[in-house]
Amino acid sequence: MVSEFSLIDRFFKRQTVNKSVTQGIGDDCALLKIPQGYELAITTDTMVENVHFFAGSDPYHLGHKLLGVNLSDLASMGAKPLAVTLALTVPKIDENWLQAFADGFFALAERYSVDLIGGDTTSGPLTLTVTALGLVPSGQALRRSTAQPGDIICVTGHLGDAGLGLKINQGYDCKQPDPALKRFNQPDPQVEAGQALIGTANACIDISDGLVGDLGHILQQSQVGACLDWEALPLSTEVLTYIENTGDWAMPLIAGDDYELCFTVSPDKVQNLTITHTKIGVIESEPGLRLNKSGNIQPLEVKSFEHFS
Amino acid sequence: MVSEFSLIDRFFKRQTVNKSVTQGIGDDCALLKIPQGYELAITTDTMVENVHFFAGSDPYHLGHKLLGVNLSDLASMGAKPLAVTLALTVPKIDENWLQAFADGFFALAERYSVDLIGGDTTSGPLTLTVTALGLVPSGQALRRSTAQPGDIICVTGHLGDAGLGLKINQGYDCKQPDPALKRFNQPDPQVEAGQALIGTANACIDISDGLVGDLGHILQQSQVGACLDWEALPLSTEVLTYIENTGDWAMPLIAGDDYELCFTVSPDKVQNLTITHTKIGVIESEPGLRLNKSGNIQPLEVKSFEHFS
Repeated sequence: MVSEFSLIDRFFKRQTVNKSVTQGIGDDCALLKIPQGYELAITTDTMVENVHFFAGSDPYHLGHKLLGVNLSDLASMGAKPLAVTLALTVPKIDENWLQAFADGFFALAERYSVDLIGGDTTSGPLTLTVTALGLVPSGQALRRSTAQPGDIICVTGHLGDAGLGLKINQGYDCKQPDPALKRFNQPDPQVEAGQALIGTANACIDISDGLVGDLGHILQQSQVGACLDWEALPLSTEVLTYIENTGDWAMPLIAGDDYELCFTVSPDKVQNLTITHTKIGVIESEPGLRLNKSGNIQPLEVKSFEHFS
Repeated sequence: MVSEFSLIDRFFKRQTVNKSVTQGIGDDCALLKIPQGYELAITTDTMVENVHFFAGSDPYHLGHKLLGVNLSDLASMGAKPLAVTLALTVPKIDENWLQAFADGFFALAERYSVDLIGGDTTSGPLTLTVTALGLVPSGQALRRSTAQPGDIICVTGHLGDAGLGLKINQGYDCKQPDPALKRFNQPDPQVEAGQALIGTANACIDISDGLVGDLGHILQQSQVGACLDWEALPLSTEVLTYIENTGDWAMPLIAGDDYELCFTVSPDKVQNLTITHTKIGVIESEPGLRLNKSGNIQPLEVKSFEHFS
C-alpha cells in the first residue's frame, strides 16, 4: 500500500524555487508572502476523464496540459505564475502513471519557476484540478471588460491547430499530424506574451473555448461589437487543407483548446507591441460579432465550447 | 440546457464582501490585494462521492462540509479565511441539488465573510474541490513542526463525535443520534480558535484524520513524542456509551472528521489561553505516542485515516 503521504513525498514534493513561498507542502496550509505593489491572480481549472480527455490519454501530456490550461488563465490577465495547488483524484495507485503525470507537470512547472505548494490526493474517478496563483502589478491586470471601439483585435499564434488535433484523434486523416497533435496534447501557455501586454493591451482573454466564444466574452463585458477579417486569420497549412477537404471553415473560429491570447489594442499603441501577433479585426461600437469574408460581412453567432450540452 | 456560465451566475455568483477582493467571478482570474504585514495561507481539499461521502448525501450538508474542511485547515494555521475557489464536477444539472449545495456552502461562507472568487464547473462523476485562501500575520502561522518537550497538549471540543456519526450511518443504534450526526454532516471549523491561538500555541493541527494520526504529524515534524491521558479525553456521553456497548475504546482516538484543533502550549503560557479547551497530555522528548490508561502506559500506533488502504 502506498499511503497518501508517501505518494505526495514520492511524486510531488520538490524543493520550492520562489522565495515568496514561505511554506510549501508539509503543513495544513502553504504560506505565501506577496511582494508589495502586486496583486495575486487566482484561477482554477478541472479536467475530467472522458469529458476533457480520452480514457487512456498519455499521463505526461495530461500533467503538461492541466498545468498549461491554468497558466494560460494567468497569462490572459498578464500575471507571472508563482505557485499552484493540485487536487488529484485517481482510481488506483499506478506508479508508472503517476511518475509520467508528475514528469509532464513538473517539466512545464520548472520552465516557468512554478512551485507546487499543496493539494490533495484522493481515490475516485480520474479528475484533475489545479488552482494557480500568479503576481500582477497592482491595478494593471488585463481584463475582459476594457475593450474600446476602434481597438485592433490581435491573436498570438495560429487558430484551430488544437481543433485539428482533436479531429485527427477522431479519425481525420492529416498528412502532417504531429504539430496539430502536439498543440492539442501539450498546449504551451502564452506566459511571457501576457506579461508583455501589460500597459499596452486594453483587453485580453485566452481562447481556450474558441475564438468566437472567448472574444464574445470581451464583447459582452466591454459592451462593444467586433468585425473579424477572414483573410487575416492566422491559419496553418494543415488547417487550410482541412477546410479545403471538409468545407468546415468555421472550425478554427469555434474549436477550443488553442491556448493563445486574443487581445485588443488602441491603434496608437499597436507599434508598442513587442510580441509576435496577428491583427484579425476591429472592435466596433455596434454590438455583435461579424465576419468579413471577401467583402461579404456576415454575423457570427457567439458559440463557445459548453459542457452539459 | 443550462450553460456553464448561467450555472455560475445563477447559483454561485454573489456580491463579494472583502475589500481585498479586487476581482471576483467573471474574468480569467480573480484578483486579491494582500494587506501588508500578512502572509497568504492556501489549502486544497477534495471530497469524492462514495469515498468521502455516501451517494445520495444531502447536498446542503455537502456544501457546508466541503467549505468547512477547508476552513478547518486555515484555522489550524491561525489564518483568517478570506476567499475560496470551487471546482465542482457534477454528473448532471440538477437544479434542486445545486441550489441546496450552494445554500449550505454560502451559509457557512457568510458566517465567516468568505468570498467565492472563482472556480470551474464541469460534468463528470461527483467530485468537489475547494481551494481556500486566508490571511495570517507574517511569520506567526501555527505550524506542525514547532512543538517542544514539556508542552501541554490540548484539544478544542469533543473527540469521536463525528466518528460516532459515521457508525450511526453504518447501523449503530444510538439513543441520541442527532448531535453526532450533525458533527459528521456539518462540522464547524474552529476558525476563531485558530486565530486566538496565535502567539500562545507552539504547534497546531486540525484533527480531520483522527487525533492519533494528526498528533502523529506534530510529533514527527517536531521530532518529539507524547503521552496522552485517557481519563482526560473529552468524550461525549454518547461516545462513552458507544465504547461501553462495543468495547471499541480506540474509536475517538483514531476516527476522522472531528474538525477540532489539537495544539501544544508551553506550561507557562497555558494561563494565556482564551479559548475553551481540554488538556489531554504532554509532549515528551522520547519519540513515539503513548497512552496512560489508569496508570498503565501503553504505546499507541500512529495510524491515520488513509485512502487507498
